[in-house]
Amino acid sequence: MLSRFMSGPHPAKRRLVAMSSHLGNGPQNGGPTGPAGQTRAKVLTIDSMNPLVKKVEYAVRGPIVARATELEKELEKGVPKPFKQVIKANIGDAHAMGQKPITFLRQVISLCVNPDLLKDESFPADVRERARRILQGCKGGSLDDVMAVPLHTLLESHGIGSYSDSVGVEVIRKDIAAYIERRDGFPSDPDNIFLSTGASDAIKNMVKLMVRGEGRDQTGVMIPIPQYPLYSAVVAELNAVQVNYYLDEDNNWALDIAELERSVKEAREHCTPRVLCVINPGNPTGQVLSKKNVQEIIKFAAREHLFLMADEVYQDNIYADGCAFHSFKKTLFELGPEYAGLELASFHSTSKGYMGECGFRGGYMEVINMDPQVKLQLKKLVSTKLCPPVSGQATMDCVVNPPQPGEPSYESFIKEKTAVLKSLAERAKLVAETFNSIEGVTCNTVQGAMYAFPRIHLPPRAVEKAKSLGQSPDGFYALQLLEQAGICVVPGSGFGQRDGTYHFRTTILPQPDKLKIFMDAFTAFHNKFLQEYSD
Amino acid sequence: MLSRFMSGPHPAKRRLVAMSSHLGNGPQNGGPTGPAGQTRAKVLTIDSMNPLVKKVEYAVRGPIVARATELEKELEKGVPKPFKQVIKANIGDAHAMGQKPITFLRQVISLCVNPDLLKDESFPADVRERARRILQGCKGGSLDDVMAVPLHTLLESHGIGSYSDSVGVEVIRKDIAAYIERRDGFPSDPDNIFLSTGASDAIKNMVKLMVRGEGRDQTGVMIPIPQYPLYSAVVAELNAVQVNYYLDEDNNWALDIAELERSVKEAREHCTPRVLCVINPGNPTGQVLSKKNVQEIIKFAAREHLFLMADEVYQDNIYADGCAFHSFKKTLFELGPEYAGLELASFHSTSKGYMGECGFRGGYMEVINMDPQVKLQLKKLVSTKLCPPVSGQATMDCVVNPPQPGEPSYESFIKEKTAVLKSLAERAKLVAETFNSIEGVTCNTVQGAMYAFPRIHLPPRAVEKAKSLGQSPDGFYALQLLEQAGICVVPGSGFGQRDGTYHFRTTILPQPDKLKIFMDAFTAFHNKFLQEYSD
Repeated sequence: MLSRFMSGPHPAKRRLVAMSSHLGNGPQNGGPTGPAGQTRAKVLTIDSMNPLVKKVEYAVRGPIVARATELEKELEKGVPKPFKQVIKANIGDAHAMGQKPITFLRQVISLCVNPDLLKDESFPADVRERARRILQGCKGGSLDDVMAVPLHTLLESHGIGSYSDSVGVEVIRKDIAAYIERRDGFPSDPDNIFLSTGASDAIKNMVKLMVRGEGRDQTGVMIPIPQYPLYSAVVAELNAVQVNYYLDEDNNWALDIAELERSVKEAREHCTPRVLCVINPGNPTGQVLSKKNVQEIIKFAAREHLFLMADEVYQDNIYADGCAFHSFKKTLFELGPEYAGLELASFHSTSKGYMGECGFRGGYMEVINMDPQVKLQLKKLVSTKLCPPVSGQATMDCVVNPPQPGEPSYESFIKEKTAVLKSLAERAKLVAETFNSIEGVTCNTVQGAMYAFPRIHLPPRAVEKAKSLGQSPDGFYALQLLEQAGICVVPGSGFGQRDGTYHFRTTILPQPDKLKIFMDAFTAFHNKFLQEYSD
Repeated sequence: MLSRFMSGPHPAKRRLVAMSSHLGNGPQNGGPTGPAGQTRAKVLTIDSMNPLVKKVEYAVRGPIVARATELEKELEKGVPKPFKQVIKANIGDAHAMGQKPITFLRQVISLCVNPDLLKDESFPADVRERARRILQGCKGGSLDDVMAVPLHTLLESHGIGSYSDSVGVEVIRKDIAAYIERRDGFPSDPDNIFLSTGASDAIKNMVKLMVRGEGRDQTGVMIPIPQYPLYSAVVAELNAVQVNYYLDEDNNWALDIAELERSVKEAREHCTPRVLCVINPGNPTGQVLSKKNVQEIIKFAAREHLFLMADEVYQDNIYADGCAFHSFKKTLFELGPEYAGLELASFHSTSKGYMGECGFRGGYMEVINMDPQVKLQLKKLVSTKLCPPVSGQATMDCVVNPPQPGEPSYESFIKEKTAVLKSLAERAKLVAETFNSIEGVTCNTVQGAMYAFPRIHLPPRAVEKAKSLGQSPDGFYALQLLEQAGICVVPGSGFGQRDGTYHFRTTILPQPDKLKIFMDAFTAFHNKFLQEYSD
């Protein structure tokens, strides 16, 4: 929908250009030329390329974000603007918004990268122990007494410069399984753990396993609306059918089972729904599912014979009183033998939580009740990409195996972690409250995750103006917000929303001092906008 | 073809199991059970899954490698074997074979990971400068005087914990473009550079852009035989048509234009060849293309209206006297205006060369003459995966922007780099010479890359024996080599070979002392094998 912002040639005109180019009599535009100065016809054009790729949309990094980057460059060059800096609230990237890395984590990774530093006793003993353990794990060696392993054998070979197993380093998979066991109180098998290049990579692979068929046999993928646009992008690229179910905005974005039932029933008229995707805590909507709701979803998936994909990357980001994270796996296991065979994949990431390590591209997926033959196929599929980045795997290990009480890094680790989560909780509250204090804006409680998804009630004249410009109303609003206030958010149309409603997604990640400036600038913009377009 | 090693149930039997499971009256095998103890039917089974994924094969990490890992575990547990260790010569992973990381590179990355170390003046000044430069680049800031940037602003935000631009950090793209300009003597535009998660990721994205159509419109992808199996895997997964052209073993695996012409002509009977993939230096075949050959390939691609994909990840791995690396880009630009519009993508990686940094998953692609609208589509496509791992991008930066004469790390860097490449050249020679000294084995000169691909002349009784076991003859040979000598190589059938010929791929990467043991063990095995199966 953001493609409405694009000002490329009209499709019909594009075809003409491509044709004339193909006939060798295209315009002499200084481009590559063939014999007699004629333009060489391209093999790969917008018309000849993969049509599925063209259908992909990903607003979180779409044209409005590209415009924000342009504005930053203009500011740097001294071009006068009505704002001093661009605030990029479009993406869940905590470090980009000023959050500092967790010291323990970065120390461990730096020792893995540069094992010469293992000799440096100014690093805490637990940092050195973790790094040795990961390095020894990369080597595939025994882990009986990591500190007793001579340094030169660690330096000798492997380390994080080698490919790991395609599913990830074995010791890290074991640490992840142990983490899940502690979290849920149920067994986790390391053979069910697949490290990945961020959670996106695993989500894509999981959907890829399930796409098939044509017509009514074509795989339907049920996704929430609003959704994180990775899902719609993957569905488009892999030629599956997007099956929408709407979250209930009036009920703090709850997931209503009657709506799931409506959705699956209607989808069965034209495709075969095979997978249900749930994002908990919600992105962009910030709700946290109650245990009862998780139970109902599991029962629905079982009843309707659906594979359940649980995007649980925000499992550490729970803010609102009375809310808690209930993993799908734990809830499934608690439901007992009647549902014990349900197929489930759960995703986690280093990019969110309190660590916010997006750039390392760490992540994992746990699969439950996957058919053993399918699991072999999945292992084969991931092997073609050799392995996820090993430094990202090591980052994941630090997340699932943090310092324990009594270890030298424990106090500072807990202090840093707690400070980040406490501040995020305060910001979640501040953002929603401020939005609700503004005329024409309503916002549900941000119970978890990293975003608010306020609804904006646009005056009819603003809607008309947008339409006259060929833009979506919320896209028009977001572009004005960027150009006038330097605030970069993502229009609701990039996530999906009920027809006739308009929203945007903003992160809650600007540091507290900047967030205040941000909310003030937003308020001023919004009031001016309303004034301009009110009757 | 290696799937012949797999001992899963017969397809017909599999279907029966799936059906009975679906009917809810499957065997009580202790698995998940539904109401009344019946097995819950799986949503995702080998029969219901994506059929394209099933077609993917990737022998470099296939079942024979899985068996090697099992053997390693057995050895660790003290199970007696006719060998003391497994030598994994199946994959181009230099560090796993004992090669040490380049000091400069690891120092720079460790400072990027842990910027507190920027204060540590025991790190050389150029290491600190490079790390500051990369960190400042991640921040998107100006690079006028990196050393003058106060440390606290580098620590303040961004760094390698943030997502980068989806195409990669801008300063790293500029460094790559500058590297290509120095290498080729022709301009390179940073806007044509796409960082990637290893080269595999970029190769897959590039093919993905070009797949389309059905029947005779279906995209044909021309690949060499023997090939690196990533190509056949990508072609299978993306539902393109694999179009084979055979390298000329009798002529040191040269790429014969007449064979390209035969191949494309035959392919046009049933599909639309749109892309020609060339691997230079060759994998698994180790040949280095002459400049004349590169010119001919370019002319062929232009004549036949093909997009050219040049896998140049071994560009630093040239060993044989009289051989040199001629990049497709340089050769294209030298050919002048007649060919100037040819569409080309060239791939590079941190995993090979003298650095062998596989685990960081660094890589890039340069696209030449790509249609601007298609390039926008490519940018959108890569944005759905957010960004390649930033530590891998930083690794790539060290490769394209190494220490310069006069800088403190220069001497040791050159010493380390030269030692690795000199030793690889010696090993390339030793391996081919040893193979050629053995009865029933012939091997072309390893001019470049990291592999030998010897031909094995198997006695008819060995071929019969293999067939009686349902194995490919070279697969049978490779499995015996593993079980009896602990040597893990990949059978030629995993790369493709002319019918009736048998090969295997081995890396030349074991360190010199181990390589001697390896070649001796191989020779002993081979002679015994010949004896056992000779008439």
